[in-house]
Amino acid sequence: MSIAAFDHPFLSGLLGDDEVAALLSVDADIRAMLTFEAALARAEGGRGLIPTASAERIAEVCATFAPDIALLKQATATDGVVVPELVRQLRQAVGGAAAAHVHVGATSQDVIDSSLVLCLKTVFSLFAGRIDDLILKLDGLDESFGGQPLMGRTRMQAAIPITVSDRLRSWRAPFVQERERLAHQILPLQFGGAAGTLEKLGAEADAVRTLIAQDLGLADTPQWQSQRGFVADIGHLLSLITGAAGKMGQDIALLAQGGDEIALSGGGASSAMPHKQNPVAAETLVALARFNAVQVSALYQSLVHEQERSGAAWTLEWLILPQMVMATAASLRLSLQMLDTIARLGAKA
Amino acid sequence: MSIAAFDHPFLSGLLGDDEVAALLSVDADIRAMLTFEAALARAEGGRGLIPTASAERIAEVCATFAPDIALLKQATATDGVVVPELVRQLRQAVGGAAAAHVHVGATSQDVIDSSLVLCLKTVFSLFAGRIDDLILKLDGLDESFGGQPLMGRTRMQAAIPITVSDRLRSWRAPFVQERERLAHQILPLQFGGAAGTLEKLGAEADAVRTLIAQDLGLADTPQWQSQRGFVADIGHLLSLITGAAGKMGQDIALLAQGGDEIALSGGGASSAMPHKQNPVAAETLVALARFNAVQVSALYQSLVHEQERSGAAWTLEWLILPQMVMATAASLRLSLQMLDTIARLGAKA
Amino acid sequence: MSIAAFDHPFLSGLLGDDEVAALLSVDADIRAMLTFEAALARAEGGRGLIPTASAERIAEVCATFAPDIALLKQATATDGVVVPELVRQLRQAVGGAAAAHVHVGATSQDVIDSSLVLCLKTVFSLFAGRIDDLILKLDGLDESFGGQPLMGRTRMQAAIPITVSDRLRSWRAPFVQERERLAHQILPLQFGGAAGTLEKLGAEADAVRTLIAQDLGLADTPQWQSQRGFVADIGHLLSLITGAAGKMGQDIALLAQGGDEIALSGGGASSAMPHKQNPVAAETLVALARFNAVQVSALYQSLVHEQERSGAAWTLEWLILPQMVMATAASLRLSLQMLDTIARLGAKA
Amino acid sequence: MSIAAFDHPFLSGLLGDDEVAALLSVDADIRAMLTFEAALARAEGGRGLIPTASAERIAEVCATFAPDIALLKQATATDGVVVPELVRQLRQAVGGAAAAHVHVGATSQDVIDSSLVLCLKTVFSLFAGRIDDLILKLDGLDESFGGQPLMGRTRMQAAIPITVSDRLRSWRAPFVQERERLAHQILPLQFGGAAGTLEKLGAEADAVRTLIAQDLGLADTPQWQSQRGFVADIGHLLSLITGAAGKMGQDIALLAQGGDEIALSGGGASSAMPHKQNPVAAETLVALARFNAVQVSALYQSLVHEQERSGAAWTLEWLILPQMVMATAASLRLSLQMLDTIARLGAKA
Repeated sequence: MSIAAFDHPFLSGLLGDDEVAALLSVDADIRAMLTFEAALARAEGGRGLIPTASAERIAEVCATFAPDIALLKQATATDGVVVPELVRQLRQAVGGAAAAHVHVGATSQDVIDSSLVLCLKTVFSLFAGRIDDLILKLDGLDESFGGQPLMGRTRMQAAIPITVSDRLRSWRAPFVQERERLAHQILPLQFGGAAGTLEKLGAEADAVRTLIAQDLGLADTPQWQSQRGFVADIGHLLSLITGAAGKMGQDIALLAQGGDEIALSGGGASSAMPHKQNPVAAETLVALARFNAVQVSALYQSLVHEQERSGAAWTLEWLILPQMVMATAASLRLSLQMLDTIARLGAKA
Repeated sequence: MSIAAFDHPFLSGLLGDDEVAALLSVDADIRAMLTFEAALARAEGGRGLIPTASAERIAEVCATFAPDIALLKQATATDGVVVPELVRQLRQAVGGAAAAHVHVGATSQDVIDSSLVLCLKTVFSLFAGRIDDLILKLDGLDESFGGQPLMGRTRMQAAIPITVSDRLRSWRAPFVQERERLAHQILPLQFGGAAGTLEKLGAEADAVRTLIAQDLGLADTPQWQSQRGFVADIGHLLSLITGAAGKMGQDIALLAQGGDEIALSGGGASSAMPHKQNPVAAETLVALARFNAVQVSALYQSLVHEQERSGAAWTLEWLILPQMVMATAASLRLSLQMLDTIARLGAKA
Repeated sequence: MSIAAFDHPFLSGLLGDDEVAALLSVDADIRAMLTFEAALARAEGGRGLIPTASAERIAEVCATFAPDIALLKQATATDGVVVPELVRQLRQAVGGAAAAHVHVGATSQDVIDSSLVLCLKTVFSLFAGRIDDLILKLDGLDESFGGQPLMGRTRMQAAIPITVSDRLRSWRAPFVQERERLAHQILPLQFGGAAGTLEKLGAEADAVRTLIAQDLGLADTPQWQSQRGFVADIGHLLSLITGAAGKMGQDIALLAQGGDEIALSGGGASSAMPHKQNPVAAETLVALARFNAVQVSALYQSLVHEQERSGAAWTLEWLILPQMVMATAASLRLSLQMLDTIARLGAKA
Repeated sequence: MSIAAFDHPFLSGLLGDDEVAALLSVDADIRAMLTFEAALARAEGGRGLIPTASAERIAEVCATFAPDIALLKQATATDGVVVPELVRQLRQAVGGAAAAHVHVGATSQDVIDSSLVLCLKTVFSLFAGRIDDLILKLDGLDESFGGQPLMGRTRMQAAIPITVSDRLRSWRAPFVQERERLAHQILPLQFGGAAGTLEKLGAEADAVRTLIAQDLGLADTPQWQSQRGFVADIGHLLSLITGAAGKMGQDIALLAQGGDEIALSGGGASSAMPHKQNPVAAETLVALARFNAVQVSALYQSLVHEQERSGAAWTLEWLILPQMVMATAASLRLSLQMLDTIARLGAKA
């Protein structure tokens, strides 16, 4: 037993993903939050809401500022969010007249949600690459074994003969669709101020939002602080990916149990039976699919997001979404690895 | 206690929806399944796979045939699906040489999944109309009360004053998006034969599929019998709708508790406190949102759909999806009803 | 597609259970609610809170009264609960001076929750009998085939040889434990009045509650109207039962796929492949286990039951619990049926 | 965004729990696994299955052995479990003739599941203490404010006046029951060998199991490697605890929104509105309750545990249970903290 399998000292060997973990790390989060604060200052400087010199000073400090994490933790305990303390430290680091021009008109949720979306942007680009690889590998298997006969099975029973190509198509099609969706997923800026009305920016509110969105490379949409369909969309997409991988994993585990229609290299060892070669990656794909299938329920619960901002619904998202991203990362990593171990697919010649 | 609240003798008063229940009824299902069989016969007749006369005879019988439901039930108990017995009865009704030309090259899943999509098509059109009405009603409230002050609340605490318009925008935006999605949702034909390869139709397989799709007004896509992303997409969309309504319901229940920023007419009675006016519809919207948030998890579990067809994963969909549709129907019906009871929104003048 | 599989015109052949459906029917519910009202009147008569003659008259009417269901439905639509209208009709049927002595000091939740518990009581007794039968059948299989060799499988791979007895023990043990729990499950009366304080019964409150509990054969415990651990306990127990059956079903489906370690009689037909014998019951057990595993989440969500009574959390229970009971009923029925089809277990001689 | 909120560099200030995190740490897990190996060796020594000198040597090494974590991680990646590599390292550390007497007749699951139960044992004792404190604090509030009037609220509406005592009873009762259950929760040893039959220990199998159980202070029960009701029981109990705390948190957040029936000290700051005092702990309790309500679904999915050991179902437990324990820890910690901030409960004098 141990807390989080995804970054656990040894379980992460199976369930972690170093590359994606880095993209979700506290460092990446802080950098993204400061990137938002810099873009905010630049936009407000550009629209004359704060002095240009202040905007430059703030952006400059944001580029390198390293907050005191222990104080962030302490403040999060009482504030429920990290931003008030982060802004306090940032103001101190900025100093002088510009200090008062940090975070003008923004609220915690603007910073945290926009940081989330910035992180998702890098993660999605990485996922897209992995799915491309996965499709290539499936195509490779098709080239090598596509013509081989395979017993088509329905309701766990032999049905009629199909080919390896037929089975591969059922694995491949969902990934093609999800790859497409990753490419077209809208990634919106969150910017609404205290209660969603950007009341402190007056007539400049929309212009500032547009500038920030352009700066950050995010979609320029109205605030979504209490309308969390976007978060559910992300959970849906992640669950589709792990679901597709889980179906593939289940199929491979079943092939491996049968034994005569697949040859795998390099399965897992057993402490009691040194002769066994367990289809560990295949089974783990099933576990990760069922994991995300469970987690995603919470994101739909969080749609019941009361009033202008629900602490309860929002905190629940924090507990869920990052680990869904990690589960998806591990699932894609293991899918690639598993496909590499397939030495033969289809009936023996 | 009672089995299904959605079609329960008295709970359906609160939780049912007569209009949508009819679209999901056994009659509608049987009509849709027979519509598929007719389209299949016509397409196969058109491509010379069966005699044109047989195709005509089959389509004619399908238009009016009423199967023996008791026998369908009995056969479903052993077969796990209704189609083998339905086809047997249909063949008997068709009679003569044409009997052997019923259901050629198709499998149970083709019939059942395509019937599902046909039913969804009518349901979605009805939902779109309701969401249009809902948006109109929200616009009406905006016209009447949009300028009124309302206390913006974050983390369950008074934050800063906003207007009724601001709050209404947060209710309206998700429905506009979901309305858009309903309009663009792809509704695919399922047609794959015994194991997804349409092996009995040879070179005519694609042409037959295209003809059926055109006939039924469904999208002409490759079979998706073991790739169930479409079903999860539907569950996602339904949960977004009930989630948006649940957020609105929660907000109204909280306004009603406060008491001074809303006036409602016609709430529910209490058996113990005749003086009370309970915001029954508002609370029920929360319940329905949480209901769908739970159900949808099963559709992601069903993505782990083994081999060419999983009896377990497919049956699980049957247990879940119809009631998600009904929950959404009830949610939209109650939303419309609830908005009609709002006599005032925003602070008293 | 169709609304509720459990009482669907043909799907109920597979997924329904006539015996348990009757115990959850609207008639059973109304009888149980009236039984509560009768017991309440008797108890209040016994403690001098209402005239003995009224109590007798009420109890007498409750024994046979058949309310107008259409009016119940109509009232539930606005009140959110059936009880105010049921009480109104009951008062009318009782007539005279006694009419005012109906439902004294009670609230809707007292009637509905206590009816739920009364229904569960009969259901649990029936489930206990089925589990007894199931254990007997497993013992019978052990006698017939226990000594036969079976390949022990871990992580979907052949591990070491075990015996059929070993496998049967892993199926049997959970049922023995759940049988025990059914026998010891506390089934509490709910009785609290408008806000849980029985304020209208003054010093007689506890005595009246004790009398009602004795009359109904339920446990005499303080009201649990906003503390819903009991409902979660029930969901937990039901999910354990379907989980145990699902594990057994999954094992049998896997044995059937392998083919050489089991012989089944009478599987399901396929519309495309008349030669196939599908392990329909086994797969359905898996579907029902996953169904309850999803549903039960809602009962834990409902623990967040605000204030003295949450319409939202309570309504959510109504949407969930009855179908969990039905899923469990179908699961036990199918388990018994599936075990009867096992013609051989273990390797062929 | 960041991976695991429970041990996140700053979110753990809000959502973590240092004390319980230590009990679930990799160090604690390794110590518990080695404690199992030591107990196994001693038991096998005691029954003459391995030389007493080997048993002593193994136990001695287990008491202090610190494995190479990097190698454990690497091996877990391929084996899917840590135990084969842990045992290999342990054998190396033991050295000599005794090396071959390490882990005799045991399997990975014996080590990992028993370590889980040992960790739960310490955690549950700590939880019991916290619930005792929580009940004391509720009693303290009752003494201070119990007699104060409070508006009883049903369906989010004012119902009838109750007292603070009445409300406190509804918070307290579930904790009393859960405290009781923690005390009586059976914590079983897992010991079954490769496929659950302890086939390598022959006639000594039961005696060895009994000795290990006595040594570890765990219940001596047959192996439960594919019957996971115990794990679901734990998830159920944890969810009941967080559910009870979530109900209390929701109530306090609603009281805080009303404002006149509670006075809280020391709420959370807002980055946009320095004047606000947010009921952060109360809202977080709701989030944690809904979190566990979602997670627990996975443990019921894992009951469908195929054959003698399911890699997929078992791995899913690892992903879920530890964070449910952490959510419960945070929930109890925050409940205690929240109750301390209540300066007044009930209407102002």
